[in-house]
Amino acid sequence: MANVYFDHNSTTAIKSEVLNAMLPFMQSQHGNPTSRHVFGRNARDAVETARAQVAQAVGVQASQVVFTSGGTEANNFAVHGITAGLVRNGFEKGQILTSAIEHPCVSKPAQALQANGWQAKSIPVDENCRAKMDALEALLHAPSSLVSVMMANNETGALQDLPQIVALARAKKVTVHTDAVQALGKVAVDFNELGVNAMTISSHKIGGPQGAGALVLDKRVDIEPLLYGGGQELGLRSGTENVAAIVGFGAACELAMQNLQKYRQKTTALQAKLDAALRAMGANVFAEDANRLPNTTFFAFEHIEGETLVTALDKAGFAVASGSACSSNSGEPSHVLLAMGVAEDIARGAVRVSFGSTNTAQEVDGFLIALQQEVARLKQYSAIAA
Amino acid sequence: MANVYFDHNSTTAIKSEVLNAMLPFMQSQHGNPTSRHVFGRNARDAVETARAQVAQAVGVQASQVVFTSGGTEANNFAVHGITAGLVRNGFEKGQILTSAIEHPCVSKPAQALQANGWQAKSIPVDENCRAKMDALEALLHAPSSLVSVMMANNETGALQDLPQIVALARAKKVTVHTDAVQALGKVAVDFNELGVNAMTISSHKIGGPQGAGALVLDKRVDIEPLLYGGGQELGLRSGTENVAAIVGFGAACELAMQNLQKYRQKTTALQAKLDAALRAMGANVFAEDANRLPNTTFFAFEHIEGETLVTALDKAGFAVASGSACSSNSGEPSHVLLAMGVAEDIARGAVRVSFGSTNTAQEVDGFLIALQQEVARLKQYSAIAA
Repeated sequence: MANVYFDHNSTTAIKSEVLNAMLPFMQSQHGNPTSRHVFGRNARDAVETARAQVAQAVGVQASQVVFTSGGTEANNFAVHGITAGLVRNGFEKGQILTSAIEHPCVSKPAQALQANGWQAKSIPVDENCRAKMDALEALLHAPSSLVSVMMANNETGALQDLPQIVALARAKKVTVHTDAVQALGKVAVDFNELGVNAMTISSHKIGGPQGAGALVLDKRVDIEPLLYGGGQELGLRSGTENVAAIVGFGAACELAMQNLQKYRQKTTALQAKLDAALRAMGANVFAEDANRLPNTTFFAFEHIEGETLVTALDKAGFAVASGSACSSNSGEPSHVLLAMGVAEDIARGAVRVSFGSTNTAQEVDGFLIALQQEVARLKQYSAIAA
Repeated sequence: MANVYFDHNSTTAIKSEVLNAMLPFMQSQHGNPTSRHVFGRNARDAVETARAQVAQAVGVQASQVVFTSGGTEANNFAVHGITAGLVRNGFEKGQILTSAIEHPCVSKPAQALQANGWQAKSIPVDENCRAKMDALEALLHAPSSLVSVMMANNETGALQDLPQIVALARAKKVTVHTDAVQALGKVAVDFNELGVNAMTISSHKIGGPQGAGALVLDKRVDIEPLLYGGGQELGLRSGTENVAAIVGFGAACELAMQNLQKYRQKTTALQAKLDAALRAMGANVFAEDANRLPNTTFFAFEHIEGETLVTALDKAGFAVASGSACSSNSGEPSHVLLAMGVAEDIARGAVRVSFGSTNTAQEVDGFLIALQQEVARLKQYSAIAA
């Protein structure tokens, strides 16, 4: 039996059109974009075409896009670079406010800066995984340097009210960054409509290759590099450009924009089918009342370990996750669910399904059959154990 | 006429065997190595196989290899992470000593640390591009934290006497890092024989893809991450692994080791032919008396701008460089040549040829004909201008 892939928030297969766009730059069209000869100039043209494609996907000018090796680097760059830029411009070190449900590649660099005299604080969320506005407003009474709140949560899929967050922060002249890695390609992402100053996006979550991401910046942000060296990316991110990956990222952005409506229709239908069945089976569906990504459902059955269920479903031919891939080796319950106030024993049961545009209703039917069987089997064990 | 590529120190074409090894991980074998399902486990296996291949190429254990997005990140990681690790372990901030001919992705992060109370100092080199041992010894009289000297210079190809540098540093208990990006695949690189504590290597200089590199560490180094997040690479380098690029890096390392002797024989012959002809034409060959990489020749004709000659040769079908790709947009003469004491007007004439294993004696013959024509033509102009 073929394996069905329901883990698109973790990583996606490269779309064939994207791979076709990349291949010339992995074969005859090799070249370092900084070189002046014909190989270099071809590579440079390809990088700049991709930059325009990426920029268009989030509604900005090409000059606002700084390519990185991926989302993690872009998030570290944002937190490190924006704060270092403020210091360089003579500002005091204020609070760094990140939501309690951020990916660790935002919250950990903020915490690491505490060794240099910064103060990292967490913005609490409600039971539907949404940043609490009153709490943010209260936090902003103390001098603050940066607010970072993700656009869509990778585990629950919950979407944040960024314009409101931006309004609160801007009233205090605080820079706002958003990690939009999970939102891009799934819902409309418009940099200017959101009103943020900086945004992280990534290639391998939208049918592009691993190894490319970007930090999108508005002109008001004077950012310090994280990687120093040859001065690529206008001095903001040194290192030979990963040309093929950047070309793939550009192509993936263009495709994702073309297919956004179709993607949303398709995944919304799959999600509705899954959610209804889960509720009928008595599962907890997390962030159920939030505005969620159309492809993401995070759920748990009482008395069944998420890890155990994921392993059983993998054997049955369905690839799902027990949370974010990044935390799946930690053995700890999801920090996102704990921040939402979910009890630890329920949180340990969490399983994430994240659809892609190639998934089908038949696959969901097959999954539900396997899920019912495995849940029944595992409940029997837990009944015996109890 | 087909373009002949003589700029392998800038970047190399991906070898077909390497691309073949990568392609499955860009097609059906997609997966996030941290995921627990079958897609994730396959990706994890591939990354660990590549880690063993990379480790073997420099004679270390797989556990000593930390994958990064490339050489620039690995060098920034080394400088930032080793110094931060020393502070975490209670050591005082001492000097950071980098050679005057380092790539800027070593020297610039060292300089950036001066904002945090570190002192970056430069180790001078002689006229053959080799670090001056007496100068290093004198610098080491002051408390020092890190010495970083590249194994082979990217512009001149000059090789450093690392065991001697290590001996001087170790006498003062100072950690030694080397940027071996240009040495790997061209000469034997044995981490333990060199005696260094940390070493940077990169994929796209040895027939592997752009987007992968590594920092190799000995067990004595307690390094702090540069990128925080999901805790990949044993917590030392977060971010979803670029699986296909890492697989390609591993395959390229294995191939490079298999072909090292053949590569050296072939490029040594091409270099001897080129160098003899250049001398006959009256060119300056830089670092002529140093032990050099077998593929690299850096030269200049008096009264001819390097940029102009590179452009003319490009039109004639030969891709060469006016120095490192990274500095080719700066318009400044090579900092490497200036550090060697080369006069600025001579340095402005610099042109770099860097061969690969696919280049032929016939291509060198053709190049020499084109070079003679262009040099004669440009000398005429400069004679008129003068």
